Amino acid sequence: MSHPARSSASARSGSPTLTPQDLIRCKRDGERLTNDQMAEFVEGVTSGRFSEGQIAAMLMAMYLKGLSMEETCSLTHAMLHSGDVLDLSTVPGCKVDKHSTGGVGDKISLILAPWVAAAGVPVPMISGRGLGHTGGTLDKLEAIPGFRTDLSAERFRKQVESVGLAIIGQSERLAPADRILYALRDATATVENLSLICASILSKKLAEGIDALVLDVKFGRGAFMKEMPAARQLAQALVDISRGMGKPTSALLTAMEEPLGHTAGNGVEVAETVACLRGEGPADVMEVTRALALEMLRMAEIESDDAGRLALLEQVLGSGAALERFQRFVVAQGGDGSVADHPEKALPPARVCLEVRAPQSAGAGFVHGVDALAIGRAAVVLGAGRKRNGDAVDPAAGVSSIIKAGTPVRPGDLLCRLHASNEAAAEAARDLCLEGIVFSDVIPAKIPLIAERIG
Amino acid sequence: MSHPARSSASARSGSPTLTPQDLIRCKRDGERLTNDQMAEFVEGVTSGRFSEGQIAAMLMAMYLKGLSMEETCSLTHAMLHSGDVLDLSTVPGCKVDKHSTGGVGDKISLILAPWVAAAGVPVPMISGRGLGHTGGTLDKLEAIPGFRTDLSAERFRKQVESVGLAIIGQSERLAPADRILYALRDATATVENLSLICASILSKKLAEGIDALVLDVKFGRGAFMKEMPAARQLAQALVDISRGMGKPTSALLTAMEEPLGHTAGNGVEVAETVACLRGEGPADVMEVTRALALEMLRMAEIESDDAGRLALLEQVLGSGAALERFQRFVVAQGGDGSVADHPEKALPPARVCLEVRAPQSAGAGFVHGVDALAIGRAAVVLGAGRKRNGDAVDPAAGVSSIIKAGTPVRPGDLLCRLHASNEAAAEAARDLCLEGIVFSDVIPAKIPLIAERIG
Repeated sequence: MSHPARSSASARSGSPTLTPQDLIRCKRDGERLTNDQMAEFVEGVTSGRFSEGQIAAMLMAMYLKGLSMEETCSLTHAMLHSGDVLDLSTVPGCKVDKHSTGGVGDKISLILAPWVAAAGVPVPMISGRGLGHTGGTLDKLEAIPGFRTDLSAERFRKQVESVGLAIIGQSERLAPADRILYALRDATATVENLSLICASILSKKLAEGIDALVLDVKFGRGAFMKEMPAARQLAQALVDISRGMGKPTSALLTAMEEPLGHTAGNGVEVAETVACLRGEGPADVMEVTRALALEMLRMAEIESDDAGRLALLEQVLGSGAALERFQRFVVAQGGDGSVADHPEKALPPARVCLEVRAPQSAGAGFVHGVDALAIGRAAVVLGAGRKRNGDAVDPAAGVSSIIKAGTPVRPGDLLCRLHASNEAAAEAARDLCLEGIVFSDVIPAKIPLIAERIG
Repeated sequence: MSHPARSSASARSGSPTLTPQDLIRCKRDGERLTNDQMAEFVEGVTSGRFSEGQIAAMLMAMYLKGLSMEETCSLTHAMLHSGDVLDLSTVPGCKVDKHSTGGVGDKISLILAPWVAAAGVPVPMISGRGLGHTGGTLDKLEAIPGFRTDLSAERFRKQVESVGLAIIGQSERLAPADRILYALRDATATVENLSLICASILSKKLAEGIDALVLDVKFGRGAFMKEMPAARQLAQALVDISRGMGKPTSALLTAMEEPLGHTAGNGVEVAETVACLRGEGPADVMEVTRALALEMLRMAEIESDDAGRLALLEQVLGSGAALERFQRFVVAQGGDGSVADHPEKALPPARVCLEVRAPQSAGAGFVHGVDALAIGRAAVVLGAGRKRNGDAVDPAAGVSSIIKAGTPVRPGDLLCRLHASNEAAAEAARDLCLEGIVFSDVIPAKIPLIAERIG
């Protein structure tokens, strides 16, 4: 018996002709991988055809030999298509998201998304959890009783259409190659490579079904990038690659030397979010949020000029429309909407509250600086953050009433309040805070919060 | 209650202070790893503290950033001590082993070991199996009915003492780090690195408990290294590192363009071994074996000069002492000793025997060349070799009566005999042999078999 169908299928099949070793060898020897080769690597990662060792060897070869712009776009494209790609084409309007490289007290997504949604920009946001000293948007939102971040793709799409925004976690089916690659990069010292960082960030973001993207790339003691030039390089690469993939993109370089606002934690940051949406937010948070909101409105071509956009933003904030949009969003995702009216009642209280006060050594001077890294670490010690992926976080834990650099201070003045489940954690956190808050006789020079715009 | 013992133990403990990531990062950034760091890496490989991905990332970083001579010695030392190290200090005499980088028809170990043992050099040899087109000493010996290669360390030691030689396989407990690293290098395109190659070869050889080492580094179509300069570089590196580890070492660079002798396979090579030990061996095999034997006698400081050593070698060969030593060795390892008297009776016969004869196109000329790679591949097709690790080999399969380059030839003359278990394999092998044997009108230039001595 002959099997013509079988043999012709076999002749047609696009079965891979290169072994994993062949692909690794190409990059090892400094060759540029083609679109197809990069797709084959990412398929091998996702399907398991590449072993852990083969993926790790390829990552180290990519790290040391580098990826060209074209290769980085190919990698991003393949990672982005390694799982589901959300289709929001039926949702009217220009869908824009914001991504931050992470900081301390960075509650900007919680304020920004309902604010620009109220101004007419639909925001489909897939966000992450906190790790190390930096907090995560999902952890903050989950401090609101009942709030769910695990909506289905369909419910996510419907909510972006009806409420104008939705914030959920990354599902197993979104960019699965990134999850595998990220975990392995962390284990194999191949994290700090611009191409790999960009592909990881953008593959997740572009799988959301957005039309444009705004980036908040932070630099300073509390940021992933400590120095501005490195942050600028990352921002430029992200903008170039995202545009290379056909998405209008811009970035702001923002300082992360001290925590944003007066809070760092989960519930405490939700309470500050409500204050911001009431128009009572701290100047630094409002400045960065407003600048990012303006970028998003520009992308969505809302109003004809920046003056009009800023006026619209002030109007939806002043009228309460932004706060009302936040409330609708919380309720839509199962949360207790009363948080928008009485956050102090809706949010879980901490068992222990400890006030940190200025020591005698502070003299009669000024707060010279508040180290974002120290406060971030204190928040982790209090239970608000994670040392390792998978750790549970305490929604009530955190730091509030954090004093700002430049504030006049005398011994005994309040520096911050610590919220914890036990005294020992609060005391350990106090030591970190006292180390991180530095005093001087003179007013410190003011660091511009928004250093640069790239786009 | 206080736990002074516990706290002091903890203070004393040499627990690793660097994470796997830290160690990978050092090499990734081009730093030199210290002795301790290299030992920590190899311990992490052997104990499983390093994940497969972490080992692979380190291998790729080593491949691309290179290892200094000191690092290569540290790596070799750590790999050698990752398992049991045989102690042959109670065996009198200078124990010397020979290592070959592998070739086609390379039965030299089988002839060399009993020959030099009969001349007074104890040979503790741990050998390997064939892979791809190159054969393996263990496979050849196992063609002898009853022959065992899995002796215990203690029986190995006793046999080296009583018989003067023993040839066994690598146990699970010998250089286990090498087994893990080698398998991963094969999977991750990190094989072709001189430092990693040297550390792999020498960690196994130096774990045998030898006092000195002679290397046969082959180059040419049938060798691991195709070009002489690459082989020379490998030989020099092996000699330098082995000496750096305190072992007198020399190397010969030998040509592997055509198969050694007239046979390639398992049983067929044992039969040729017996012919060699009877003084009836082919010139090429005897030339290389004699040169290596001379090196081993020099290392062991037997006789006062090379003339004396060569005379001794001819004497033990001519007297039958070398053949008698081979027989004692075979019997000591459970094999049928009659192989030394009647190899054709003792060795298993093949079901199919096919003669390959010169085609019309050969004209009335000469054999220009016999491609060792083609003959090696034919042997694999016949069942004498392995495509993959773990494949079974057929002891009766192989190629015999292989014609040598420079032989006058006419159409219909015998080029070689193929031994197989079935006609199809024999016919496929015939095609390979006919492709690999090339004719010309003139006598080809003679390639020197021993190109160089390094040491």
